[in-house]
Amino acid sequence: MSETFISIPHNSDFSYENLPYGVFSRSGQTETHIGVAIGEQILDLSAVAHFYDVAYQNALRAANLNELMSLGYDAWAAVRTRTIALLARNSELDRDESLKSQAVVSQKSVKMHLPATIGDYTDFYSSIHHATNVGVMFRGRENALMPNWKHLPVGYHGRASSVVVSGTPIRRPLGQTLPVDGADPAFGPCRLLDFELEMAFFIGGPENKLGERVSVTESRKRVFGFVVMNDWSARDIQKWEYVPLGPFTAKNLGTTISPWVVTVAALEPYIVDNFPQDPTPFPYLQHKENFNFDIKLEVDIKPKGAAVGTTVCRSNYRHLYWTALQQVAHHSVTGCNLRPGDLMASGTISGETADSFGSLLELCWKGTKTIPLSGGETRKFLQDGDEVIIRGYCENDQGKRIGFGSCSGVVLPAIPFE
Amino acid sequence: MSETFISIPHNSDFSYENLPYGVFSRSGQTETHIGVAIGEQILDLSAVAHFYDVAYQNALRAANLNELMSLGYDAWAAVRTRTIALLARNSELDRDESLKSQAVVSQKSVKMHLPATIGDYTDFYSSIHHATNVGVMFRGRENALMPNWKHLPVGYHGRASSVVVSGTPIRRPLGQTLPVDGADPAFGPCRLLDFELEMAFFIGGPENKLGERVSVTESRKRVFGFVVMNDWSARDIQKWEYVPLGPFTAKNLGTTISPWVVTVAALEPYIVDNFPQDPTPFPYLQHKENFNFDIKLEVDIKPKGAAVGTTVCRSNYRHLYWTALQQVAHHSVTGCNLRPGDLMASGTISGETADSFGSLLELCWKGTKTIPLSGGETRKFLQDGDEVIIRGYCENDQGKRIGFGSCSGVVLPAIPFE
Repeated sequence: MSETFISIPHNSDFSYENLPYGVFSRSGQTETHIGVAIGEQILDLSAVAHFYDVAYQNALRAANLNELMSLGYDAWAAVRTRTIALLARNSELDRDESLKSQAVVSQKSVKMHLPATIGDYTDFYSSIHHATNVGVMFRGRENALMPNWKHLPVGYHGRASSVVVSGTPIRRPLGQTLPVDGADPAFGPCRLLDFELEMAFFIGGPENKLGERVSVTESRKRVFGFVVMNDWSARDIQKWEYVPLGPFTAKNLGTTISPWVVTVAALEPYIVDNFPQDPTPFPYLQHKENFNFDIKLEVDIKPKGAAVGTTVCRSNYRHLYWTALQQVAHHSVTGCNLRPGDLMASGTISGETADSFGSLLELCWKGTKTIPLSGGETRKFLQDGDEVIIRGYCENDQGKRIGFGSCSGVVLPAIPFE
Repeated sequence: MSETFISIPHNSDFSYENLPYGVFSRSGQTETHIGVAIGEQILDLSAVAHFYDVAYQNALRAANLNELMSLGYDAWAAVRTRTIALLARNSELDRDESLKSQAVVSQKSVKMHLPATIGDYTDFYSSIHHATNVGVMFRGRENALMPNWKHLPVGYHGRASSVVVSGTPIRRPLGQTLPVDGADPAFGPCRLLDFELEMAFFIGGPENKLGERVSVTESRKRVFGFVVMNDWSARDIQKWEYVPLGPFTAKNLGTTISPWVVTVAALEPYIVDNFPQDPTPFPYLQHKENFNFDIKLEVDIKPKGAAVGTTVCRSNYRHLYWTALQQVAHHSVTGCNLRPGDLMASGTISGETADSFGSLLELCWKGTKTIPLSGGETRKFLQDGDEVIIRGYCENDQGKRIGFGSCSGVVLPAIPFE
């Protein structure tokens, strides 16, 4: 790989090897463009679309990533190759100072938006450590994992409208809870507000029709790229409402994703062995190809007014039991049509050790422990004003990063009921 | 109300008082228009948009109903008033033969489409008889209703992409099941395919922002209109997958809705008392206004090659415990943003008597009974080639109807796994 003409700080998430896609608007403008992050800059793809194959130009000039996602695997590879060439030193773009000044824009000067119109959002439950932790807390160690858990990637349909981009404040919700088992429920502000450290991927490729399965092999061409995600959760509301149809209002208060979508192509050097699966799953879920990733994940909590945040969790995407390919194959096994722009999340990603648990529920073990924050404060659950910041990155021995930037949100106080 | 120049057959679902909205394309064309059904005709609103207030014309020329839904309650009333006037004998439209011949099109000659782009689809569980039946079957009579059921309208997020318009065939899905409790799961075609008799309403009005509740009073202005719905369900797949996060692939194989959206204005003469609620719900769910409807519902099963269908269920919307206003208020109590075009379904609508149960699961009581079909066949669950036809209508003493037309789909055989 040659060098780029863009100056990239050491340890930047957005190395020349990364080139994640995002949607932004320039200062004072409402129109959104798609761009590629590099260093502290963005290459505005609408400004350079004419350098690409004519078949891709409309997608590169679109207001969001749905059309590029729909073009499919081969188009993604071709566009990436062309972008790498355009960003190379002495490229036609590098030599055109006028165009370069229009097409390259500082990340600091723009507003980021959701990468795509999300038709449907699905949340899986694919971390064995997380599922086990929750099971042990609520059902005891013997029945920790439900009988179906190792046979299929358990998941549920989430609320697409409430998926927001990093930086959007999250309002503490009101809702019903059951403070004392067997007593009457109560209504009021959520008292057990939590984060969930997740990653999610966007579906790409042409839509399969309703009634058509996507095989686990074909799934490889339906995964466009990944984001980091915070699946904010109202634990007390969730506990009262979720039987028998699953989480509902406890989750639709907001789900935050990072603005930059890191492609599978960029992640390929960080592929690691799939998580060992025992029992062997049904053939429709079997694939030999590794599709697991060494992506380091961190969660910081930064109370209002605090100078710095405290890292409360260090986890890794590689802890997931089920792969994204298995998630896609299972999602569509009954014939569900998957559309470009659909978002599929991993579920909370917890590792084996107590400092790698991906939620306060687990970190504070159902409120029986506290975690210390720098500055002397402690937390069992989130307080108003707390900012939760999730970061994700792959890193090689030379400190070169494929990073996701950050996914953050501040908790706003509840609006009282009148 | 004066008379209309359209000839309407006696007992037509689409009386002059009804005027439901739908989206259609003319024979040989791909462009979709919005229209109003009347008798056996459709008034193409794009062709007469210029007769309406200029503020509404874009919405009437749109390709689907989302924009009209977004305009809000006052606009809906104004548009309806104008449509009634346009369809009156001797109106400006009636007097313009040329325009009339363009604007009035036979229902038989068009293709119907989904009424709106459905951003999110939610399915409630609001029939007390259905929830009790399912509870008795799976948990016994003492624990039939879950403790939360009478305190909040239980519901879950469904899959928007798999909602299809009446007439779309539904493929029997493959999936995992647990034929014998405690044994290994199996993989293959669903053996317990079922219908669920439901109704659903479309959300209208301007979107509330994430973090903002819609009060139960404001909810009145967010309900645009209703459709009848079949929530096809793979019972064997559902039973194995749904713990703890709810139904997932057992439902996303397809959900069918009727093409015509009957407005609340048209249903108002058929408002009946709300279902008595004990205990009194929390204040955020309390409303004095009646918002329950006497809508007769019927389900027919018509086997492949049968001359006629057999009505296997006669139920009524009025059996629902929770009102649509309570469903909206609860859905948004934690701050979920609701967008025009969102679809909210009732859950299976079962009455008290065995012939009013809204699913084969209940009608055949978990497979312990069969139901006879005309021609000598019987059913416990659906077979390949079966057509399920759901109808809904309000009817007054004079036989005048506010009807929903029908919602139908044929079961296609499973595609074997290779």
